[in-house]
Amino acid sequence: MRQWGTPVPIYIALLHYPVYNRQEEVTATALTTLDIHDLARLARTYGVEGLYVVTPLRSQQALARRLIDHWVTGRGAVYNPTRKEALSLVRMADTLEEALQGIEQEQGRGAKTVVTTARRYSFIESLPYGEMAELLRRGRDNPYLILFGTGWGLAQEIVKKSDYVLEPLEGKGYNHLSVRTAAAIILDRLLGGE
Amino acid sequence: MRQWGTPVPIYIALLHYPVYNRQEEVTATALTTLDIHDLARLARTYGVEGLYVVTPLRSQQALARRLIDHWVTGRGAVYNPTRKEALSLVRMADTLEEALQGIEQEQGRGAKTVVTTARRYSFIESLPYGEMAELLRRGRDNPYLILFGTGWGLAQEIVKKSDYVLEPLEGKGYNHLSVRTAAAIILDRLLGGE
Repeated sequence: MRQWGTPVPIYIALLHYPVYNRQEEVTATALTTLDIHDLARLARTYGVEGLYVVTPLRSQQALARRLIDHWVTGRGAVYNPTRKEALSLVRMADTLEEALQGIEQEQGRGAKTVVTTARRYSFIESLPYGEMAELLRRGRDNPYLILFGTGWGLAQEIVKKSDYVLEPLEGKGYNHLSVRTAAAIILDRLLGGE
Repeated sequence: MRQWGTPVPIYIALLHYPVYNRQEEVTATALTTLDIHDLARLARTYGVEGLYVVTPLRSQQALARRLIDHWVTGRGAVYNPTRKEALSLVRMADTLEEALQGIEQEQGRGAKTVVTTARRYSFIESLPYGEMAELLRRGRDNPYLILFGTGWGLAQEIVKKSDYVLEPLEGKGYNHLSVRTAAAIILDRLLGGE
């Protein structure tokens, strides 16, 4: 019997920058509002402390704030209280660094970062899910921030700076899941109970 | 080390009828095109033989067919071949019965049905994921069809007629995931390798 959650605070972040576009250029992607809903609901399900939506684009931040306000304090909060519970976990940040500062302020301790990726990198060893889950269960010293990329994946600079890189989800020769469904599988593997 | 996939053919179905609406009335829901993309990509990832999109509404069937054609034989197939691979697995059906007939035609054997649900029912015992996964791994005799509902969940008549009912995904006192992310977690628990 697995236990839901971990003894240490877990955060997740959805990065819209710096990520690759189809041409392998580093870019900022547009928000997908459904991703914010799905990841917030996952965060609430798995006892995640907060979901950082990271984008440097002001117009996109304004869009996300309108969405959050609607569900957390606006009419949506009455219409669907369970959605309010989930979207209350969303925070905005211009950059990954700002998200990390936010966590340090909240927890009094800096977070270790965990990269999720659909690629394999030659310069870094990737960690199996079971080992990462064990690390989180044994964790005592610091919060963890699990990073999810949009577009064609997180820029290499983020991967290089991260503390851990998780193995790609490789199915039967196919690893082209949406970030929503990949995040669901990864959080269940790391934090899921049964 | 878990192995991806199973020795028996697995199918999944996304039911838009008969499902409940917010008022607990049995209804037909509208398609969410993103659900079809996400579930088709999951099907391809986990070696699922086919995804049945079940709706009795002609307008919704036409919408789904346009989407599938675009990605499987239209311009989308060139733009994104991996999406073509996934959406090639989609079949349409008016009813669950029609989906079951389709599987029987394809496999020469009728499928057992597995219901996924966010509720607990007094009239049926639900099966833990580990036991269902074991059943699938040992399976020899028949294909399985895993059912996912839209709206406020599958109508009770479907649950009553099913061969197996899986336990709800219950997180930290919150079971309000999207069908996309719930399907991801459930397929990974039943069919996922590591």
